[in-house]
Amino acid sequence: MADSPNCDLKSLSPLQLFEKVTAQGEKVRALKAGKAPKDEIDAAVRMLLSLKLSYKTTTGQDYQAGLPPRDLVLINNGTNKEEDEDFVDPWTVQTSNAKGVDYDKLIVRFGSSKIDTDLINRIERATGQKPHRFLRRGTFFSHRDMDQILDAYENKKSFYLYTGRGPSSQAMHVGHLIPFIFTKWLQEVFDVPLVIQLTDDEKYLWKDLTTEKAYEYARENAKDIIACGFDINKTFIFSDLDYLGSSTGFYRNIVKVQKHVTFNQVKGIFGFTDSDCIGKISFPAIQAAPSFSSSFPQIFNGKENIQCLIPCAIDQDPYFRMTRDVAPRIGQPKPALLHSVFFPALQGAQTKMSASDPNSSIFLTDTPKQIKTKINKHAFSGGRDTIEEHRKYGGNCDVDVSFMYLTFFLEDDDRLEQLKQAYTSGELLTGELKKVLIETLQPLIAAHQERRKQVTDEMVKQFMTPRKLAFEF
Amino acid sequence: MADSPNCDLKSLSPLQLFEKVTAQGEKVRALKAGKAPKDEIDAAVRMLLSLKLSYKTTTGQDYQAGLPPRDLVLINNGTNKEEDEDFVDPWTVQTSNAKGVDYDKLIVRFGSSKIDTDLINRIERATGQKPHRFLRRGTFFSHRDMDQILDAYENKKSFYLYTGRGPSSQAMHVGHLIPFIFTKWLQEVFDVPLVIQLTDDEKYLWKDLTTEKAYEYARENAKDIIACGFDINKTFIFSDLDYLGSSTGFYRNIVKVQKHVTFNQVKGIFGFTDSDCIGKISFPAIQAAPSFSSSFPQIFNGKENIQCLIPCAIDQDPYFRMTRDVAPRIGQPKPALLHSVFFPALQGAQTKMSASDPNSSIFLTDTPKQIKTKINKHAFSGGRDTIEEHRKYGGNCDVDVSFMYLTFFLEDDDRLEQLKQAYTSGELLTGELKKVLIETLQPLIAAHQERRKQVTDEMVKQFMTPRKLAFEF
Repeated sequence: MADSPNCDLKSLSPLQLFEKVTAQGEKVRALKAGKAPKDEIDAAVRMLLSLKLSYKTTTGQDYQAGLPPRDLVLINNGTNKEEDEDFVDPWTVQTSNAKGVDYDKLIVRFGSSKIDTDLINRIERATGQKPHRFLRRGTFFSHRDMDQILDAYENKKSFYLYTGRGPSSQAMHVGHLIPFIFTKWLQEVFDVPLVIQLTDDEKYLWKDLTTEKAYEYARENAKDIIACGFDINKTFIFSDLDYLGSSTGFYRNIVKVQKHVTFNQVKGIFGFTDSDCIGKISFPAIQAAPSFSSSFPQIFNGKENIQCLIPCAIDQDPYFRMTRDVAPRIGQPKPALLHSVFFPALQGAQTKMSASDPNSSIFLTDTPKQIKTKINKHAFSGGRDTIEEHRKYGGNCDVDVSFMYLTFFLEDDDRLEQLKQAYTSGELLTGELKKVLIETLQPLIAAHQERRKQVTDEMVKQFMTPRKLAFEF
Repeated sequence: MADSPNCDLKSLSPLQLFEKVTAQGEKVRALKAGKAPKDEIDAAVRMLLSLKLSYKTTTGQDYQAGLPPRDLVLINNGTNKEEDEDFVDPWTVQTSNAKGVDYDKLIVRFGSSKIDTDLINRIERATGQKPHRFLRRGTFFSHRDMDQILDAYENKKSFYLYTGRGPSSQAMHVGHLIPFIFTKWLQEVFDVPLVIQLTDDEKYLWKDLTTEKAYEYARENAKDIIACGFDINKTFIFSDLDYLGSSTGFYRNIVKVQKHVTFNQVKGIFGFTDSDCIGKISFPAIQAAPSFSSSFPQIFNGKENIQCLIPCAIDQDPYFRMTRDVAPRIGQPKPALLHSVFFPALQGAQTKMSASDPNSSIFLTDTPKQIKTKINKHAFSGGRDTIEEHRKYGGNCDVDVSFMYLTFFLEDDDRLEQLKQAYTSGELLTGELKKVLIETLQPLIAAHQERRKQVTDEMVKQFMTPRKLAFEF
């Protein structure tokens, strides 16, 4: 950052302004301590006050020493009704609204773009394939630079897909499948390489786990991911604990990102504090680095300029906002993104499904009976209190978790629309809607379990071996 | 750290106390915010005040939120004469005393132990070798747990040596040789494996360098290190940028250290600030990890319990104080240390020789003529202003840089003593003492250059390839 007071303050980010105020404050203190001439001190103080004013204008907050602007606080724009705000970061999703997080607001807040009909039509034209139900129904609702990916694709320039998972336990739930189901579709329609990061190091740092256990979870989770049907010749799955120690390119990119991100920045983006361990503080660089093709020299033949597209849930966006900020400064292309909504907990869309609360989740290991019991017992209903009222006033699909789940898993658009109408009109009862969901999920999960059984240790090893894929670069 | 107020506060480190005060402060705020009963709040406030008092008693400083106790400030013990204190950290060595840093004070300050005659005699008995001149003359003056290394050695339990270098430029100066000359002697007399870390990632993070340039410097520096005569069958030299990407054990140990060190700790130990990049903040773990034998599974057959001995200049001790603090918490033995004094700049012992100031250093690439000119022109003299005064009052060996250098490089104890007496009595003039130094260094450096010419790229590659060494574990 230039020290010149003439540089245009309006072009600075909140954090850059914060750092300018801090530096100027230090300068004033140094001048005073050094007993500099009065006019010099006065000029420096005037500059400091003017910088503080710019900071306040830009962020809506008073400057506080040591407290950089927080990304999520910034958005209130003076309304100060924090309790009405949704809270979204990589570890917490919380809203007071039973319909779930307000995604349109999130797009404004994160500065991403809406996936609109034009973009969906363009994807259809480019691939010649009917758009996936996750696109048709807004499950993937936001993006960054997807148009650039399509521009390049239409000009025969390739790209690659990157997604991932934090293996915090052996048990994956149905919500965890969303990014993988969609990524598989993307890989098939665009025919591009895919890398899948298992952040076992992150889970070791955040949870009470040994590295051995975290790595074991990574391998177990890899089986569920492989069971989604990825092509072994086009897909590389890696554990950080393993791959960091077996790639010449990965660590170099990590250290490059680490050089270009300050503690102030990760404090602002992720809310880290001085009591956090230095592993957490530097981890964001490890999730950033797979966005650069040179992290995978074995796949891309050492090429640095291959564009990356990241399908992920929107709570992972902070990592990639950071990555996109760093990319041009280390001479790399910014990754593009496709953001999905959260997969709601059985108890309602106020929070996302969490593997650590067994009653909030349907696991990929659940039996048909467990699936039935959980849905009947826990799935939040948008129906009325009595059958009579339900018949008269109808149910509310906007808050009904069974209906929400059907939008994720029922492929047939017409059937889904019929169910919606019948439920809203009161013709269809909650129990009947739940039955449709149970009958949709039971065979899906049974089939997944069947495919998972076919996944051998040898296959896991192959998927996780750094190697050339079926593409030339 | 336990939350119980009954735990003995006296056993806590300043940082642990700091964290206790911070946590208690947060508790008080939470109780007040939650409108807890008055007696509960009062009890918590009393506890907070008592903790703050313990903090002040232990550290001599008032508690300040967000400002953990600094290691180096701690030492003043109320004298408050900071300008009289030596400043020593991994990046800066500064003293106002022409004799150099007060090393006895540093031993107290760092909490290490003096290498005394008993220990030197014990090393002589254990190895059956005359102690190296660096031991005889106090160049290596301080240690941690060297007695444990000897206990184990006498019981036929092996250990390994670990030292390193930050490759900030192609040019190494004579001072850089000190740890390597001594490490080579240790390796020969104890016959143990040696690992040498080249922190090219550190230099990339701290300096205006590309990763490629930092790696190139690492390889160039490796040639000078190899030219010291290390045994290729017993020595592994590694660049972080390379080895991190080719070892299954190294990154696992790094992430373990990173989980057990907070930002508060590295702030206290290294003086990092919120504006520092996250790479610097997490780097100390990378210098710590080679202290654990499991970072080198190829050498130690995956064994975790092999003790490590680190010969280094005392300014590197902060890294290893941190390492020794973490070691038991990750189930690893604490590394032992041998600390050397700094190698003084030509201009005087107030600071150490620095490769970035060409006039302060004699480089390993200097010609005989350059060596002569630099010593004659720049070496600070302890002699008198005129020949007459010198003959009458004699010179001062304590501040004379040429004499100091001779203590490092002149092997013959009797000759050194003669020179000292002759210079102190005024019999030997400054120019004559400088001549002895020139005639000592010229052949040493010429021989080094000759050996360096013999070091081929193939040899560098071999030294830097992860492999089994000539030891069974």
